[in-house]
Amino acid sequence: MGEPLFDRIAYIGIGLIGSSLARVVRRDGLARSSIACARSESTRVTARDLDLVDEVTSSIAEAVRDADLVMICTPVGAYAAAAREMAPHLSPGAIVSDVGSVKETVIRDLVPHLPANVHLVPGHPIAGTEKSGPENGFAGLFQGRWCILTPPEGTAPAAVERVRALWRTAGMEVDVMDAAHHDRVLAITSHLPHLIAYTIVGTADDLEEDLRREVIKYSASGFRDFTRIAASDPVMWRDIFLQNREAVLDTLQRFTEDLTALQRAIRRGEGNTLEALFTRTRAIRRSIIDAKQA
Amino acid sequence: MGEPLFDRIAYIGIGLIGSSLARVVRRDGLARSSIACARSESTRVTARDLDLVDEVTSSIAEAVRDADLVMICTPVGAYAAAAREMAPHLSPGAIVSDVGSVKETVIRDLVPHLPANVHLVPGHPIAGTEKSGPENGFAGLFQGRWCILTPPEGTAPAAVERVRALWRTAGMEVDVMDAAHHDRVLAITSHLPHLIAYTIVGTADDLEEDLRREVIKYSASGFRDFTRIAASDPVMWRDIFLQNREAVLDTLQRFTEDLTALQRAIRRGEGNTLEALFTRTRAIRRSIIDAKQA
Repeated sequence: MGEPLFDRIAYIGIGLIGSSLARVVRRDGLARSSIACARSESTRVTARDLDLVDEVTSSIAEAVRDADLVMICTPVGAYAAAAREMAPHLSPGAIVSDVGSVKETVIRDLVPHLPANVHLVPGHPIAGTEKSGPENGFAGLFQGRWCILTPPEGTAPAAVERVRALWRTAGMEVDVMDAAHHDRVLAITSHLPHLIAYTIVGTADDLEEDLRREVIKYSASGFRDFTRIAASDPVMWRDIFLQNREAVLDTLQRFTEDLTALQRAIRRGEGNTLEALFTRTRAIRRSIIDAKQA
Repeated sequence: MGEPLFDRIAYIGIGLIGSSLARVVRRDGLARSSIACARSESTRVTARDLDLVDEVTSSIAEAVRDADLVMICTPVGAYAAAAREMAPHLSPGAIVSDVGSVKETVIRDLVPHLPANVHLVPGHPIAGTEKSGPENGFAGLFQGRWCILTPPEGTAPAAVERVRALWRTAGMEVDVMDAAHHDRVLAITSHLPHLIAYTIVGTADDLEEDLRREVIKYSASGFRDFTRIAASDPVMWRDIFLQNREAVLDTLQRFTEDLTALQRAIRRGEGNTLEALFTRTRAIRRSIIDAKQA
């Protein structure tokens, strides 16, 4: 363990992702000091009890003071207000980063508020579980997964490198790409799957009581995999769909067309169409196993 | 270990489910002898090499001769032809059962061919993985899961009890219900989730090459769970959708309506609608964990 990467890290929000990162920072001594800001009393108590950070506070202003890395870990809908609140208190030269699942609106919501002498390095560690809250984080969460950074044009390369080093230490591979491209890729790999899972579990929940009990009982036949995804944090996901609206709606449109075609094939008894698709999708699974992301 | 439950078991087809059952039968000495019928040479070789059964054959007629339990483990689309072929060779008093995921059509396809002196006890052990073939089976597959039996009215209770005992020994809880009801429940717990997973993975597969590579790379964000489901056996699933057509299309219709409502909420920026649904679906996950099916 050499020099710490940062002098002081401020976590704005410390849920599943923030607390997992805080555990990595603690484990590897990546910061000389740390502070977490959380609105909820119980989150602050948990963060303190688990010794995730040196200090906790309910004030964003207090949290960011003297921090050379401010890591925003709230739902993406809360960014604009957080930026307004932190702006006057940021240290010159500080890096502002985040872990949000949508990136174009992060830039839209943060840039207008941030002073010119701080570095914005938006990031998205692609890792998570269906659980939420600081008690459910763990340092191994990021191991072997990908992190995408979407620095706006002109961002100081040194700032990007420091954030990259942080996620590399957490065990992640780091890619840099354009924010709009990130949002388009994630719309299909993450946002659409969640939207579909929420829908199907909702459809089942609307069934009459008897049938619903049976759906739960016999859920091992496929349904339960969707319920895991559909158990993800409601506020976080509400914000993701609202903030990545265009890419999600576009992807959903393609999906709906494909579903309609499949519905037609079933209605018309076109077995060959079905078998051809199901054979093709099996190959994708093989690619994911080969890419060690299974 | 007491008396074997059966004198001779014939497996018609010995893939993931058939071979897993054969392992249970071997482990617990549930049959005095056993034979597997498989069309493919390589399946027969594997079944013999793994010592899953005493004998292998490519002839259904030969397989069912002298068997007191004939367990059909082929895709459901092959049942009618199998029944025609086995009918003249079945022993009087034999039980004919199966493991198919659709039950009304099983009865429709088997009953007209079977002699009056055999007992039909359709069954569905709700267990599986995305893998197929006898090499991927394992005796623990059924442990703690549910098996549904759908004997037609008038089936001898003793025959139902013997099949129930078999699955109980495999570690399953056994329910008896009407075939049509089974098909309706499974349409939502299993068939719709598979249809959706196949569709979304197909939608991703249609993307331009660059984007598709990224979808695989970043699949840990939700997509990969769908690819596991969409890697299930193509022929088996083709048959399920064709044979449970009405219930699947009805369920799909409900799902599509719900998806359209959600799409509308996203387009109109109705955050409360989204959050309310996502909170409701989280509760379903809790029910499944409580029911020990997670």
